[in-house]
Amino acid sequence: MQFTSESVEALVEQFAKLPTIGRKTARRLTAYILKMSREEVVGIAEALVAVKDNVTTCTVCYNVTDHVPCPICRAPRRDRSVLCVVEEPNDVLAIERTNEFDGLYHVLGGVISPLDGVGPEDLRVRELVQRVHDGHRDPLEEAEDAPAVAIREVILAMNPNVEGDTTSYYLGQLLEPFGVRVSRIARGLPIGGDLEFADEATLTRALEGRANL
Amino acid sequence: MQFTSESVEALVEQFAKLPTIGRKTARRLTAYILKMSREEVVGIAEALVAVKDNVTTCTVCYNVTDHVPCPICRAPRRDRSVLCVVEEPNDVLAIERTNEFDGLYHVLGGVISPLDGVGPEDLRVRELVQRVHDGHRDPLEEAEDAPAVAIREVILAMNPNVEGDTTSYYLGQLLEPFGVRVSRIARGLPIGGDLEFADEATLTRALEGRANL
Repeated sequence: MQFTSESVEALVEQFAKLPTIGRKTARRLTAYILKMSREEVVGIAEALVAVKDNVTTCTVCYNVTDHVPCPICRAPRRDRSVLCVVEEPNDVLAIERTNEFDGLYHVLGGVISPLDGVGPEDLRVRELVQRVHDGHRDPLEEAEDAPAVAIREVILAMNPNVEGDTTSYYLGQLLEPFGVRVSRIARGLPIGGDLEFADEATLTRALEGRANL
Repeated sequence: MQFTSESVEALVEQFAKLPTIGRKTARRLTAYILKMSREEVVGIAEALVAVKDNVTTCTVCYNVTDHVPCPICRAPRRDRSVLCVVEEPNDVLAIERTNEFDGLYHVLGGVISPLDGVGPEDLRVRELVQRVHDGHRDPLEEAEDAPAVAIREVILAMNPNVEGDTTSYYLGQLLEPFGVRVSRIARGLPIGGDLEFADEATLTRALEGRANL
């Protein structure tokens, strides 16, 4: 087997390093890049480096952002008394897409997973407790000593698996002394799903979580 | 819905432009990029631009290459009397991976497709005829007037679909006057495939193409 272009092979290697991209897809992407204009390709290259150069972590919610605090934490209209705890930045995006939540977020940075050696001290657990303790300052209040908005509910939105459940349980215990409501997003049949084909675990949760009509 | 980082969104947009990458995959890739080191990301960015800056088209076979003529056309040991005609550069790679072919290639740059407005004049058909007419010079021969190696077989390796068949038929007709053998790669059941689940067209071709044991 003979390669005819080291540059092409190098790019295939780079693409194949990324998750969900196998060698076949890497080759197809490279073939597409070859047909794009140089300006378009430079646009992709610059966007890649810009992400590393511009993106930082919000010091309030630990979401990714270009400006600290992030636009969500800065937004004057959002409900500062509700906090939604998620694992990763992409989960914030998923919840934002529903347009159903207007509180603030707290990005844990993972879940408790003893098998992977991840404990509460590796996550932003301490920071969560601090936020629940302190409440949030209203960004429209100019005065440094303006009273903070107290947090009245923490919604746990971990992924529905063992690690997510463990983390939710742990955080629930930890936040109990603060007297805030701690809730967890529902598990059940996905919309458009088929009861007949639902797995037992999901169906069990759907039955347990049944609500009055 | 609120975005928290324009840089992240810009990269998601760039990824989502690529084929086989939807918005969900684009978000997952961006999340992965965020966790990579800056050096690794710069490596990807540079590989992208390098492809546009270094890769050119071989003036003999029209494959992608960093140096003209390409390593396959330059290789002294390859059989210069057999030419394999393919649609795209990735097809060369696919055939090279078999380690079964040691002739040269000719990359057409597509297939005849009246519906897409692609005719023979949009492909490297004229160049193919010229190569079959001229034969190949041996790259080890220093002398300018060394006799060319005559082409004795042209293997058509178009994709097995209507456009590929049309193109093969057209090229077969076109090359007939040159008295070279023109063959076409076989169609039949894929190895590891299941006769029971093969579609009718493939099974028909497999029957038609049966060979003596």
